[in-house]
Amino acid sequence: MTRNVLVLPGDGIGPEIVAQAVRVLDAVNEQFSLNIQHESALVGGSAYDETGSPLPEATLTKAKAADAILLGAVGGPKWDKLDMSVRPEKGLLGLRSNLELFSNLRPAILYPQLADASSLKPEIVAGLDILIVRELTGGIYFGQPRGIRTLENGEREGFNTYVYNESEIRRIGRSAFEAARQRGKRVCSIDKSNVLEVTVLWKEVMEEVAKEYPDVELTHMLVDNAAMQLVRAPKQFDVMVTGNMFGDILSDAAAMLTGSIGMLPSASLNAEGRGMYEPCHGSAPDIAGKGLANPLATILSVAMMLRYSLDAKEAADAIEAAVSKVLDQGLRTADIASEGCETVSTQAMGDAVLNALV
Amino acid sequence: MTRNVLVLPGDGIGPEIVAQAVRVLDAVNEQFSLNIQHESALVGGSAYDETGSPLPEATLTKAKAADAILLGAVGGPKWDKLDMSVRPEKGLLGLRSNLELFSNLRPAILYPQLADASSLKPEIVAGLDILIVRELTGGIYFGQPRGIRTLENGEREGFNTYVYNESEIRRIGRSAFEAARQRGKRVCSIDKSNVLEVTVLWKEVMEEVAKEYPDVELTHMLVDNAAMQLVRAPKQFDVMVTGNMFGDILSDAAAMLTGSIGMLPSASLNAEGRGMYEPCHGSAPDIAGKGLANPLATILSVAMMLRYSLDAKEAADAIEAAVSKVLDQGLRTADIASEGCETVSTQAMGDAVLNALV
Ligand SMILES: [Mg+2]
Ligand SMILES: [Mg+2]
Repeated sequence: MTRNVLVLPGDGIGPEIVAQAVRVLDAVNEQFSLNIQHESALVGGSAYDETGSPLPEATLTKAKAADAILLGAVGGPKWDKLDMSVRPEKGLLGLRSNLELFSNLRPAILYPQLADASSLKPEIVAGLDILIVRELTGGIYFGQPRGIRTLENGEREGFNTYVYNESEIRRIGRSAFEAARQRGKRVCSIDKSNVLEVTVLWKEVMEEVAKEYPDVELTHMLVDNAAMQLVRAPKQFDVMVTGNMFGDILSDAAAMLTGSIGMLPSASLNAEGRGMYEPCHGSAPDIAGKGLANPLATILSVAMMLRYSLDAKEAADAIEAAVSKVLDQGLRTADIASEGCETVSTQAMGDAVLNALV
Repeated sequence: MTRNVLVLPGDGIGPEIVAQAVRVLDAVNEQFSLNIQHESALVGGSAYDETGSPLPEATLTKAKAADAILLGAVGGPKWDKLDMSVRPEKGLLGLRSNLELFSNLRPAILYPQLADASSLKPEIVAGLDILIVRELTGGIYFGQPRGIRTLENGEREGFNTYVYNESEIRRIGRSAFEAARQRGKRVCSIDKSNVLEVTVLWKEVMEEVAKEYPDVELTHMLVDNAAMQLVRAPKQFDVMVTGNMFGDILSDAAAMLTGSIGMLPSASLNAEGRGMYEPCHGSAPDIAGKGLANPLATILSVAMMLRYSLDAKEAADAIEAAVSKVLDQGLRTADIASEGCETVSTQAMGDAVLNALV
């Protein structure tokens, strides 16, 4: 069975990092006989420049047909003055909503070779490998009613609504449990069930979902304690699952624990496990085209794509092992440069990963 | 002018740690001629045992008349099976709501002598001294409507309301700016104004309040970035002000940065600057009565009380300097014990602080 991957290089450093990631994808495709085909399309500012839309119809059609999407990054100062409706970021948001990518997988991984980059003590974070599963299309960021109203006494009042129904919670729960099956088989659900009713329901539905996954352990933790535990002992977690807002806060804190955000991949999945894969970092227009960008987060996004959308766990493992080997060899791009290590270009880093694969 | 302090020892280790803190209060009262009077009353489980209520009428009357309240801690397994309405914690909640203690001051301070206790690298956290001002009686934890309802399709939906009006934001803003005047004169307001309307209003009102305090600098930061910055470089902050829920999460994370929660005081203030002061830690019933408890968080709560409610900054500074001197001397209670340091009892720690004061 052929699997179709849509490649969306995007803007800034997007094309150069995606180029290296595609070389790696091609290599494992051959090595593991994965039968993957890929084609490219436009998204973001470069799509706007050519078609007047950050998400052209042709791109959306291809995206809907694809088994997985590999995205570089979008945006840059060139498009900052455009109307909100055609900003590069709208390309991403359009893909998320059209493909119903409600499950955001945010790993926080710290290769021991880079442990010095963290603000935490090496023994606390070296080898960190946790996955935060954040609900991405619901919760308080999308809840109605919302706004700012004027009260009878003339004062203004701001209000937002934190809301989840059972199906929304169930599908993100399943996504987290499926991910846990690919990893350490432990899910910690984060709520504020001692105060917020919406998270009382969240916790209940997670308990129901857990019954479908007897091989995966479910625990619960309050969000304020979770923030403390991420600082105190982050390696205690395997998969954490939580709503949109708590996930926004905790996944960013967890990413920062590693001290090297240029290394972190991410995924946004739908209910069928199809998804969009992209590095956590942005389009870095200041260094675009200079061969300085770190392609490893995008290469690791390919590994995630193989694991979560293309059922090719071995190929994913091989890529992650190759990245670790390259770090062992002392190769670093500028963003993770370190004394005693060799600073290499985007292309040279891609070469090294390819060599390490075989 | 006489100032009245109500002392509420509470349960567990409360009485022993408060006893040491009161000795320190008496000492600075005399040393700085502060004209402070104090009396004690019952609260929590011990109040329930004697009167049938965790917040007896007599205690509430005295609390309303006091300029400040010094609280030890409440709760313990002895009262865990009581009805919710008479649990020890209800004593605290009753004081907060009756006295309108809407401003929760949560310092995260790391004495350089204890920097090893942190999970962060010493150079990142040694000497940390930030203050998180958390709105305590509004926001989503109290917002209406709230609950779990059944939709027309039979599915359940949980919902909560994140709501603030202008006066609520203004008074917590003023509380933060007043606190900043006692410190580094910088306030960073935390919001999610790129998504949540209620925090758009929050940000606007903070800008208005800032005009009343031209000597204090105001900046803004998104909550997910704030969580990252607390991990990356916490010393960049002076005072952070935020709503109830974000404050809950960020203040616990900030406390954990220090690695020694047994050292952290806190305050809950009303609009007149009257307030309740207490250690962040709990009543630790397992070590109660053994002379093992660390009285320093309660002693530092006295310092906060002098600074924020009793207009006695010099006495506050003297207590904090005495605590630092005692740590320099290598004295530690069991919870902060460290190789090469002398582990001392609750009373001996109190003695040492008293000696260091003169
Ligand atoms: Mg974020
Ligand atoms: Mg808390």
